[in-house]
Formats: sequence, C-alpha cells, structure tokens
Amino acid sequence: MSNKYNRREFIKTTAVASVAASMMPTSIFGTSSSKIQIGVIGTGFRGQGMTRLLLNRADVDIPVICDIDDRMIDRVLNVFEKAGRSMPKIYKEGPEDFRNMVANEDLDGVYIATPWRWHHPMAMAAMENDIHVGTEVPAALTVKECWELVRTSENTGKLCMIMENVNYRRDIMAVLNMVRQGLFGELLHCQGGYQHDLRHVKFNNGERAYLGGVEFGEKAFSEAAWRTQHSVDRNGDLYPTHGLGPVSPMLDINRGNRMVHLTSTATQSRGLHKYIVDQGSPNHPNADVKFSLGDIVTTVIKCENGQTIMLSHDTNSPRPYSLNFRVQGTNGIWMKDNKSIYIEGKSPQSHRWESDEKYMKEYDHPLWKKFEEQASGAGHGGMDYFIARAFIETLKGADPVIDVYDAVSMSVISPLSEKSIRRNSTSVKIPDFTRGKWKTNQPIFGLMESY
Amino acid sequence: MSNKYNRREFIKTTAVASVAASMMPTSIFGTSSSKIQIGVIGTGFRGQGMTRLLLNRADVDIPVICDIDDRMIDRVLNVFEKAGRSMPKIYKEGPEDFRNMVANEDLDGVYIATPWRWHHPMAMAAMENDIHVGTEVPAALTVKECWELVRTSENTGKLCMIMENVNYRRDIMAVLNMVRQGLFGELLHCQGGYQHDLRHVKFNNGERAYLGGVEFGEKAFSEAAWRTQHSVDRNGDLYPTHGLGPVSPMLDINRGNRMVHLTSTATQSRGLHKYIVDQGSPNHPNADVKFSLGDIVTTVIKCENGQTIMLSHDTNSPRPYSLNFRVQGTNGIWMKDNKSIYIEGKSPQSHRWESDEKYMKEYDHPLWKKFEEQASGAGHGGMDYFIARAFIETLKGADPVIDVYDAVSMSVISPLSEKSIRRNSTSVKIPDFTRGKWKTNQPIFGLMESY
Repeated sequence: MSNKYNRREFIKTTAVASVAASMMPTSIFGTSSSKIQIGVIGTGFRGQGMTRLLLNRADVDIPVICDIDDRMIDRVLNVFEKAGRSMPKIYKEGPEDFRNMVANEDLDGVYIATPWRWHHPMAMAAMENDIHVGTEVPAALTVKECWELVRTSENTGKLCMIMENVNYRRDIMAVLNMVRQGLFGELLHCQGGYQHDLRHVKFNNGERAYLGGVEFGEKAFSEAAWRTQHSVDRNGDLYPTHGLGPVSPMLDINRGNRMVHLTSTATQSRGLHKYIVDQGSPNHPNADVKFSLGDIVTTVIKCENGQTIMLSHDTNSPRPYSLNFRVQGTNGIWMKDNKSIYIEGKSPQSHRWESDEKYMKEYDHPLWKKFEEQASGAGHGGMDYFIARAFIETLKGADPVIDVYDAVSMSVISPLSEKSIRRNSTSVKIPDFTRGKWKTNQPIFGLMESY
Repeated sequence: MSNKYNRREFIKTTAVASVAASMMPTSIFGTSSSKIQIGVIGTGFRGQGMTRLLLNRADVDIPVICDIDDRMIDRVLNVFEKAGRSMPKIYKEGPEDFRNMVANEDLDGVYIATPWRWHHPMAMAAMENDIHVGTEVPAALTVKECWELVRTSENTGKLCMIMENVNYRRDIMAVLNMVRQGLFGELLHCQGGYQHDLRHVKFNNGERAYLGGVEFGEKAFSEAAWRTQHSVDRNGDLYPTHGLGPVSPMLDINRGNRMVHLTSTATQSRGLHKYIVDQGSPNHPNADVKFSLGDIVTTVIKCENGQTIMLSHDTNSPRPYSLNFRVQGTNGIWMKDNKSIYIEGKSPQSHRWESDEKYMKEYDHPLWKKFEEQASGAGHGGMDYFIARAFIETLKGADPVIDVYDAVSMSVISPLSEKSIRRNSTSVKIPDFTRGKWKTNQPIFGLMESY
C-alpha cells in the first residue's frame, strides 16, 4: 500500500497552510461577530434539524433564514427559541427572495435545504455574492448546472460543498480506514445506492408527513409537495449521492482517480401507482398519473483506474432500508447487507464470511473516536454532526474536504443516468469537472485531524 | 396474479401431448434396449459425476464414452465398475473422434462435459446425426454458434438442452414457487451471478486439481488445462448461466418475456497475476501472462416486460462463494446473501428483513418434496439429480423444460458482454432466438409433475 495516507502526511496536510485555504476570504475574519455567520435557506424538516445542530455550536450564528412556508418557519423559530438564540431575520417574500437575502446580508455562508431544483440557483446566487455554500444533495440537476457551479466556485473563490452526510457514517469511515490501511488490497469494485421505500414520503394527506395519504404536489405537505414530481417527470437514478459519496474517497475520485462512463437501466414503473390505488382508491385522481421513474434503476460506473461502481436506486417498493454498500479489492470484501467481511489470510476460515463487528471497532475512524460524545444525539446516527462540523471548519479557513468537484461529480450521475436510460442504456461519458486536476489532487476526506 | 400457473394448468400441461413432445423421434422407442442410450463425451471430473448419476438410473445405459485423457478415462471406467455396469466402448483417437462416435453409434442422446469450446461442435455433430443433446454450460461461445444450434435443433427436431443444474437448487425452486404464487407481486428486478474464487481451479501443479500450483494450459491438469486460457483471451461475463438460468423461469424468459439488451462493465484485471506472483514467484513464466478478464464484471439486462437482471461475474479474487441471488417485485424482496426476505403485509415488522427459512419450507417445490430421497447424495446438493432426470425424461418423450432457446439465451450473454466491454459498456441488443415465439410460448420449467 502506498504511504500517501500515513501519519506524516496526515500531520503535514493539516499543519501547512494550503492552496485551498488561501482561497478562503479574509472577510470571514472581519465580520462584526467573531462567530461564523450562516444564513439558512429552506427551513423544512431537514433545515430544522441542521439549524438545531448549527445553533448548538458556539462558533456559529444564524442571523437570517429564508423560506416561503409559514408552517415550517414557525417550526424553525421554535428551534431558535429552544436553543436560547436570538430570533433570526426572515426572508419569506416569495420563491426568489433568497436573492435579496444573499445580496443584502453580511454572511460567511449559506446552508441550503430547499427542494432539489432550487439548490443550483441558490448556490449560484450565494457564491456570486461572495458567500460560501453548503447545499443539501444533489447540488445540481443537469450537466450544464454542474459546470456553472464549478466555474462560479472557481471564479469567486467560494466553497460549494455538498452536505453528503453518509460520508461520515461510522461504519463507512471505518471501512475507509480499512481501505487506506490496505486491508482490501487494491480496490476493484464498490457498490452503493439508495434503497429506501419512500412511498410514505412521496405521498401524504397534506396535513402531516410520513403518516399516510396519497396526495402529492400542491395538495401535499413537506417533501411530497415537490419531491414526487421528479418521479413523474424523470427516469434515472434521482438520488445517487448517499451511495456514491461514501465510496468516492475510498476510490480517490477527483484525487488520483475519476469516473469515466456509466450505464443505467430502469425497470418498469409500478410501485407509486400501486400505492395510490391500494392506499387511496382506483378512482383517486392521482391513479391516473403516469410516473416516469422506473422502480429500480441500476447504474454501473467505470473509473479511470479500472474500478467499477454499481449504484442501485430503489425507492418505490416495499423493502428494508439499505444503502447497498459493498467494497471489494484484491485481498477481500466487505458487504453491508450481511454485515460481513472476508479478508484473505486474516479471516479465520477460507472462503467464509465473518462478522464485520470486530473490524468496525478495530478500524473505528479517529474522528469518530474523538467526537463520539458530541456526535451522539445529532441527526442520522451522529453523521449530521460531522457534516455540519466540516462545513463550519472550512468556513473558518480549513481545507475543504468536500468541494465543488465532489459536489458535481456526485450530482451529475442523475442527469447522465436519465440520458442513458432514454437511449436504451447507452454508455454515457462522465465529464472531468476538475479538467485534469484529478491527476495531481491529493486525497483529503477523512485525513484531517478535526473534521 | 394471473392464474397461468395454477393447478389446473399444471395438470393440463402434463397430461396433454404437446407440440414439443411431437418433435421427439419415435426412434428412441425403437432401440435394441428399452433403456435410453446415452453417450458421454468428456469424462473429466464433471463427466464422471454425471456418469455416476446416470448409471444410477435403471432406465439408462451408457454404451459408449469419448475423451482424449487416459487419466480421466481410467477414472470414469472405475465409475462403471463401481456401478456394476458393463464397460463402455471408448472413443479416444484425438479431439475429433467424437464425430466418429455420433456417426457410428446408435444413441438416443449425448451428454457433453468437455471444455467450453467443444460444446458447440459436439452438439452440432450429435444433432446432425439424429441424436439429442444435453450439454454442460455454456452451450456456445459466439452469437453465430448460438444461431447454428437453434437452426440445427429446429431442422433436425433434436433437443439441445443446457444442463443448468442451479435451476434445480432447492432454495431457487422454492423461490420460483413463491414467484408463481404471487408472493412478490409483479417482478421488477432479479440478480444472479457467479461469484466464486476460482484461483485454485484456474491454476494447479499439473498433477492434481484444486490443491495449489500456478500452472495452466499444457502444464496443468483438469480445468486449468483449458479454462484459464479464456481468462487470458476474453473480457466479459464468461459464466453467466448459473445466475441467469435460475431467474429465467421466474421472469418467463422465452415464454412470455425476453431479454432485449444488456451492458457490461469490467474492473481492471489483477487477481490472477497476483495469485501467480504470490503463490509462485515474480519470476515464474506465468507472471508475464497478460490476462484480459477483468476481475469483476457487472452485466445489466433489460427485459421486454420491463424487468432488469443484474449479473455479477467475480472469479479471480478472494471471496466467499455466492451466486448473488435477489428477487424483487412490487410486494417484496428475497436476498440470498443475508438469507432474508421481506413481504409487505406478511413480514412481521414493517421495513425489516425476516429470515427466509420459514418460507423455504412453506414453499418447498413439489419436485423436491417428491424426490428428496433420491436426490440426496447426488452432486451439488441434489440438484444434479434433477437436471439428469430432466434430460432423461425429455429423451423418453416428455416436453423439454429447458430447450435450445433457453440454452442459447443463457449462453449468448457471454459474447454480448464481451462486445459491450470492448465498446466501453455500450448497450448491446440481445437476439430473439425464438423469432417471436416467446410471445405465445407457455412457461414450463418446474411445472411438470415428475421432472
């Protein structure tokens, strides 16, 4: 195994002022408060959770929020109150009011947790106003939008981070540790995906989320009000980042490796219509809606260094939750669904799985050891604590561990997947958003001492 | 669920003389013995095992065998002796002597268990000499060979069956039962594959198989003498049938459905070279061999009725054996690797896997219940008993449950996979070998009362 991940490099990377750090504006140290000033755009359930985490931090203020839904604004104000923080200024005059917010307010960064199609215009507006961006997944919906984010981040020197929290899942970081310590040998194949029965998310009764009903769009509440329309209009892997984000650092994507082409293949679309008929009735108006999204979409990506990545998108059918992780190299394999691992010469029985439990402890990532206490109780099993921390640490001047290239290389899978499916699974080239810099960029995610 | 698989259909299909049965030659009832006369071509380890099973049957004679390896011939003669059968006539005068055998001998069928590239010419020669064929997998290595088998089987009225034993695995037949009883609803996605660390198969010391050594080709023994060269010359899913065969009847392939296109993507090739270096030495002559076969090949197939099939070929790396099975529909999912199932409205906890054990018992296939005793002790967990039985029953005049269309639709995946990989995972059309008959052909596998 190369020693590019060894301890000396770890310390060096952290100690020396880096090129990326020099991109950080001095202005962030010149605000009226010594705290990082964050604006929150989108105060739905996700925004509320992350606001709570950010307000838990002594080094963060949230002076301003932006949303158009009074019900959600009420809820997030309650978060401020519970945190004992002063109430934020509110931008709520229609869907474009975020532009006034980023133009008028003196912010270090915005955190974006709005419906998918707004991530890109909001990130663009923020960067163009000299504000760093942390956006929920995906960062963009088209190849053109991806390039715009790259160019704008490069031209403005502003961070465009994607808040892919699964990268910080404890098991994932332990496996990343295993990969870097050479346990699997040279990596060959990774799997990930988003296998999550979202039917109760895509539909509700307009009053409450996740508790039944077959409405979506205007008559629905929360995610069903906007997310479901993507299943009407689009056929592809709509949500690749939870699977792809975590395996990207394992494969050194954008930092020594890159994704070169993909194919996607979708099944027929049955689950959403069936849900409307079964939970509502065959006569419900939504029973006439034609959904484009195939129930299961399988995407296979080829990497420059030879590896393959298989992603599964599976959100319309009854099934247990699984992110489909598998990491395999020349020395062995880990698979999440059976919580098992096999390492040649190390596993006790030849050709037999062993439980991964012991390995998860042995290779527990230093960051998890260090911040276990703070992370406990934070959202999604603690990983939200880390992604929020990484965002804030970067705004304080540290090297970005997830940057605009990561944001778009994860996000672009969706439009390319749609294109492949439209053309009978044709192979589609994946742009090199780094324009060659992947050859010299060094791995960074999970290698910093404190984020 | 349609009732095309219900009990009435089951009985009807079995009772009525079918078109397929009318293809069977009357000659097979006119041989000198009332027993089915089988010639065995290829008496390696696989041929020996199947010879033993066939000789166990009171309705089968094996009057003649063909091979070119004296060591293997000696071993198979021992099988005859142990079975108390008279010694067969032997054709062993070079690799083309099988032609003399099928031309000169009065046989009902041949069973072929030779190196892959010989399956097609041997099957062709047999059918052209009015002899039925049961060939080990794969039936052919190119698209052209596939079409030749189809035309020859059609023109001669001879069976060309592929001996895909995994179709008869007990868990697979139970799951087929579940599928047909509608447990999974409408099927959406199936997975299968061949994930088997074959390094000890692809190399040996020339004296004994499976026990170490890094020789292949002329200096090697048994499979390593020929199978490994495919890994040198070809990059694709070289062995798709164990994964694809079992899910084909679940998806009604060639009988109400068909495969329309596929993509394949291969990882870099590392495992075989590494094995030679690690087990032999960096200076061993084979350390200079360049292997074409990517260590892991992922193939995704699209079906006419909308479903997708994902196949994994993974034979060069240390890993536990797994055929990668997953069967998923609108009502639930079964996955082999974690031995689990989830059926909406039936599984006790929402969104939680349950053990598949109870289901395997409840849905145990009638054939397994009926022949459990006879199958026990037969090769590969009993499934060899069933595939041999199906072959012989067909030669006795029954409808073929696996026919030439199945043989080639399973086998053609390899050359098409190679083509897709050569062209950067381009989408490749899969020929309709039935030329439209898939639309009206009725499901048959697993629906007969006794085979």
